[in-house]
Amino acid sequence: MQDDSKSSRAVVLLSGGIDSTTCVAMARAEGFECFALSFYYQQRHQVEMQAARRVAEALGVAEHLILELPFGRIGGSALTSDLEVPKSSTVDEIMPGIPITYVPARNTIFLSVALGWAEVLDAGDIFIGVNALDYSGYPDCRPEYIEAFEKMANLAIKKAVEGTMQIRIHTPLIRMTKGQIIQEGLRLGIDYSITHSCYDPGPGGTACGHCDSCLLRKKGFSEAGVRDPTIYAVDVCPT
Amino acid sequence: MQDDSKSSRAVVLLSGGIDSTTCVAMARAEGFECFALSFYYQQRHQVEMQAARRVAEALGVAEHLILELPFGRIGGSALTSDLEVPKSSTVDEIMPGIPITYVPARNTIFLSVALGWAEVLDAGDIFIGVNALDYSGYPDCRPEYIEAFEKMANLAIKKAVEGTMQIRIHTPLIRMTKGQIIQEGLRLGIDYSITHSCYDPGPGGTACGHCDSCLLRKKGFSEAGVRDPTIYAVDVCPT
Repeated sequence: MQDDSKSSRAVVLLSGGIDSTTCVAMARAEGFECFALSFYYQQRHQVEMQAARRVAEALGVAEHLILELPFGRIGGSALTSDLEVPKSSTVDEIMPGIPITYVPARNTIFLSVALGWAEVLDAGDIFIGVNALDYSGYPDCRPEYIEAFEKMANLAIKKAVEGTMQIRIHTPLIRMTKGQIIQEGLRLGIDYSITHSCYDPGPGGTACGHCDSCLLRKKGFSEAGVRDPTIYAVDVCPT
Repeated sequence: MQDDSKSSRAVVLLSGGIDSTTCVAMARAEGFECFALSFYYQQRHQVEMQAARRVAEALGVAEHLILELPFGRIGGSALTSDLEVPKSSTVDEIMPGIPITYVPARNTIFLSVALGWAEVLDAGDIFIGVNALDYSGYPDCRPEYIEAFEKMANLAIKKAVEGTMQIRIHTPLIRMTKGQIIQEGLRLGIDYSITHSCYDPGPGGTACGHCDSCLLRKKGFSEAGVRDPTIYAVDVCPT
């Protein structure tokens, strides 16, 4: 770990879910001063921004920037339109292939905005909690995509071209299972009850328990051997 | 030129200046059905969006999508803050190096949004009017950057990874002088009086005549040997 007085700045993408929250904690544990970046992108689960704020506060980031992006006007995804979010009973029932919750170019747009902010902050390190093991098959979560983005980024910005900074895209979770991610987060002191994963939350932000994101979350806690602190809609008893 | 009944779709980035306007005309001349994409990015010269609308109308694009992006909150540029826009008398007086009108990661963010829309539209071709000859030295206008972006794009989106579409980033102006660009545009019937270039317009959108963008514009018309239809602030006589 670096000495605090010499800590480097990092931009960390933060959605408020398990992966990005763990990613902030891991960047901090590596000694980085974290600048969290979150987006209202007209996602149906905007409640995740409340989780992002809680995480940013709990983990003591240097700054938390929340920006609006008009993804709804681009369309093409169940997360930004009224297309139905697929539901299953278990992870094994999730349909193969890239699901309709895929958002065209989402990580590319998020990383591009992070790149601009990183240049302004003199933060050469960008963290993104992508995972290519327990994930929904999104192409912009794979190592070959991240490598190509990093290469492009170092040709895109003034400070990289002038040689005063170099962009490194960090993906510390990319080869971890959801269970391993949760275990690492718990070791770093994360209280996962403040995070949010559900793609299709009910009133008050209650998790549906059956979208891919809920199922992967449940699987993670089960594998990690710890209690899932999430309140799922199916667990709520009528009064 | 392709037959209209078989025309392919292209997304074309359109700022309303000389380069992007010519780029739309060239894409159209190649037989593409053009989907123009413009951005309010909190730029001080928002008046360029009026030009973009005029161009989209005049060139008969299939659709013109104008999106808002919060670049002002990222900062780092004279175009999105109150930093002073540099002024000179002639192109030869422009300071060497990348000027403070550079906007961190601007083309990367613009192209990323274009990529998302292109996937939704099934438009494998994206046109951007970057120019690496008569330009302000921005790193995200160079061929090596564009190549790296294209490579990344084909790893980023679902349809490319599944093999049902391939992304090609077209930069037809990249090796042309401003004079050659204007000559080509005139050949294609463009009325450049509807375009806007100035970074620091006065009331009513009048061009300042002395920012880099105005100076490159003037140089272009001079080289092309045609009259510059722009009304510059210094040309306006007091009543």
